[in-house]
Amino acid sequence: MSDSAPQSPRGFVVHTAPVGLADDGRDDFTVLASTVPAAVSAVFTRSRFAGPSVRLSREAVADGRARGVVVLARNANVATGREGEDNAREVRAAVAAAVGAAEDELLIASTGVIGRQYPMPAIREHVGTLAWPFPEGGFDRAARAIMTTDTRPKEVRVRVGGATLVGIAKGVGMMEPDMATLLTFFATDARLDPAEQDRIFRRVMDRTFNAVSIDTDTSTSDTAVLFANGLAGDVDPEEFERALDEVALALVKEIASDGEGATKLIEVRVTGARDTAQAKRVGKTVVNSPLVKTAVHGCDPNWGRVAMAIGKCSEDTDIDQEKVAIRFGEVEVYPPRGGDDLDEDALRAAVAEHLKGDEVVIGIDLAVADGAFTVYGCDLTEGYVRLNSEYTT
Amino acid sequence: MSDSAPQSPRGFVVHTAPVGLADDGRDDFTVLASTVPAAVSAVFTRSRFAGPSVRLSREAVADGRARGVVVLARNANVATGREGEDNAREVRAAVAAAVGAAEDELLIASTGVIGRQYPMPAIREHVGTLAWPFPEGGFDRAARAIMTTDTRPKEVRVRVGGATLVGIAKGVGMMEPDMATLLTFFATDARLDPAEQDRIFRRVMDRTFNAVSIDTDTSTSDTAVLFANGLAGDVDPEEFERALDEVALALVKEIASDGEGATKLIEVRVTGARDTAQAKRVGKTVVNSPLVKTAVHGCDPNWGRVAMAIGKCSEDTDIDQEKVAIRFGEVEVYPPRGGDDLDEDALRAAVAEHLKGDEVVIGIDLAVADGAFTVYGCDLTEGYVRLNSEYTT
Repeated sequence: MSDSAPQSPRGFVVHTAPVGLADDGRDDFTVLASTVPAAVSAVFTRSRFAGPSVRLSREAVADGRARGVVVLARNANVATGREGEDNAREVRAAVAAAVGAAEDELLIASTGVIGRQYPMPAIREHVGTLAWPFPEGGFDRAARAIMTTDTRPKEVRVRVGGATLVGIAKGVGMMEPDMATLLTFFATDARLDPAEQDRIFRRVMDRTFNAVSIDTDTSTSDTAVLFANGLAGDVDPEEFERALDEVALALVKEIASDGEGATKLIEVRVTGARDTAQAKRVGKTVVNSPLVKTAVHGCDPNWGRVAMAIGKCSEDTDIDQEKVAIRFGEVEVYPPRGGDDLDEDALRAAVAEHLKGDEVVIGIDLAVADGAFTVYGCDLTEGYVRLNSEYTT
Repeated sequence: MSDSAPQSPRGFVVHTAPVGLADDGRDDFTVLASTVPAAVSAVFTRSRFAGPSVRLSREAVADGRARGVVVLARNANVATGREGEDNAREVRAAVAAAVGAAEDELLIASTGVIGRQYPMPAIREHVGTLAWPFPEGGFDRAARAIMTTDTRPKEVRVRVGGATLVGIAKGVGMMEPDMATLLTFFATDARLDPAEQDRIFRRVMDRTFNAVSIDTDTSTSDTAVLFANGLAGDVDPEEFERALDEVALALVKEIASDGEGATKLIEVRVTGARDTAQAKRVGKTVVNSPLVKTAVHGCDPNWGRVAMAIGKCSEDTDIDQEKVAIRFGEVEVYPPRGGDDLDEDALRAAVAEHLKGDEVVIGIDLAVADGAFTVYGCDLTEGYVRLNSEYTT
């Protein structure tokens, strides 16, 4: 972030270091902690192969209070059996002791390759050197240290009343082809009613992070957490929800446009749906279609693929192809206008022009009722395939 | 097929010709007909954007009898509005008249680009020249004329009792990047009880064509039809089901290995599931995972991606990661054995070796109950992206 960005929220401190989870010397170990207990809201992956980090963190947030999180990047510690679970417990306990927190006040998140054990001797040695308290701020270092295949760190800050809200996230990238694992952490010194904070957090996650899809593959480690330590006093909840929305949406767009191999952000805006769920289902179907994604990549005005993708929602029998409208940017491409070949050529040229931009907006109106939802994704490129098929393990 | 293959089923005739749906002079217009009425079984796409061809064909098979099908390749006639519907009716009526059939005794199938009108003057002119009856046989020409982006024709014949069963199919390929549209036609001179024929057909389609997935995109034109004209007399229904299974499965494997840009067939065998539906769901989730598909493409023994993909079945709460087993070929890769790094290296080497073959078999045992299902797919390659993102319209 630039110097004109808001300061860090009060009372949050960050430690980052390289402990050798990867072999390139980059920071891969992060501790983000509040110097005082914080109200915590969190959502986690629903994967049946969720790792011990997710299980331990779920337990840690159960009472709504936490002190922080330790993040290990480059190794997911998933599908590692009993040994992996023991390791996760040991790392969390050691870090908690170092920051003066109870074991169950600390979350743990891990992201990267699946099926490998942590290099425990190196981690033990490093944790033994931790000097508490860490320096204030440092979210920029944390945003970088939690990356795996991301090409750039993702951090957004806003002011909300007398408080500050900062969010960091990691998405996808190119350093080590693996899961499109999502981790995102928000910290604020605002004070909110804990139940209300939780409702706001879940609502915002639902319309931002749950609206993004890079490649349909769901990580075993997805974790999104908001820590609010209250040091800046009360803020207006509606104002806070708007601020959280702004930060989360900015992170989501950064994640989608940094999708593995991606060259374009795709935004699919569905309107006129029976309800929000239908709008989301149709949007996800379109943004996940490999044929839509490759057409966008090639700037091919082949809007028929969007019609095909909508058609895949075969359970939605109230979708009537004679009522649906499809737009690329401002250009309506469907229903057919019955013009001559010249009109057709002009239409395709206008769509091709829109597709040349970095952000492609596909509008779909279902003309059923007034449900709406917008989803975010990216194009599918040879770069994605290359990154994910290289021989690396 | 080679000369040693069984002959064509009696009473089936084929016409193929180029009518200019594409501009490369290739045959793109096919009429496959029985000289006597045949019992017909058919299944169609469930797309909400199904075109007029599918609607007309559904009506045609409603009474269980049909004379044949006219197939137009290189243009799906989908999302073409009222004009497209009128055109489909006109083409079918004209061909029906030419072969001495009632309009509603003929099916029509169309596959290719979406959102374009047929070149009607050329089609009208060609249909005016049709000389009935067509020569017997010619399924090999039909298999070729129905192709769009396929790289090779797909035709399989077997004997069943005193009768012959032939199947042709088109899948995906590289000539004109578009839908992975599936059309498949079976013809036999066997005689079966019509209700039993229908049950057999649906069972076989369910475990063969509904078990294949190239890229998760569902065509607006999928059509599978079996014509049985009875000229070779009765056959044993169980024997017929085995024969149909053999033909359909051979076509499915040809389709999967000819998937757009594909270099490998992927077979995912799920066992130990709660029921067939769960086995199929898990299998499809794995075979459709872009990260599994790219790992297979790169011969990367990154079996963690299979664990990740199984984990996506988050509603299947009876899937317990501590009981699941994962194999590549004969090599069990999960659960972890807790061996040392040398064992680990040997395991990865064995998996990498299996991945080098043309057919990759991933075995998943869920250890829940005894449901089983096998699905078929292909790897995801830079070729797929290139084919589907080239600027072609």
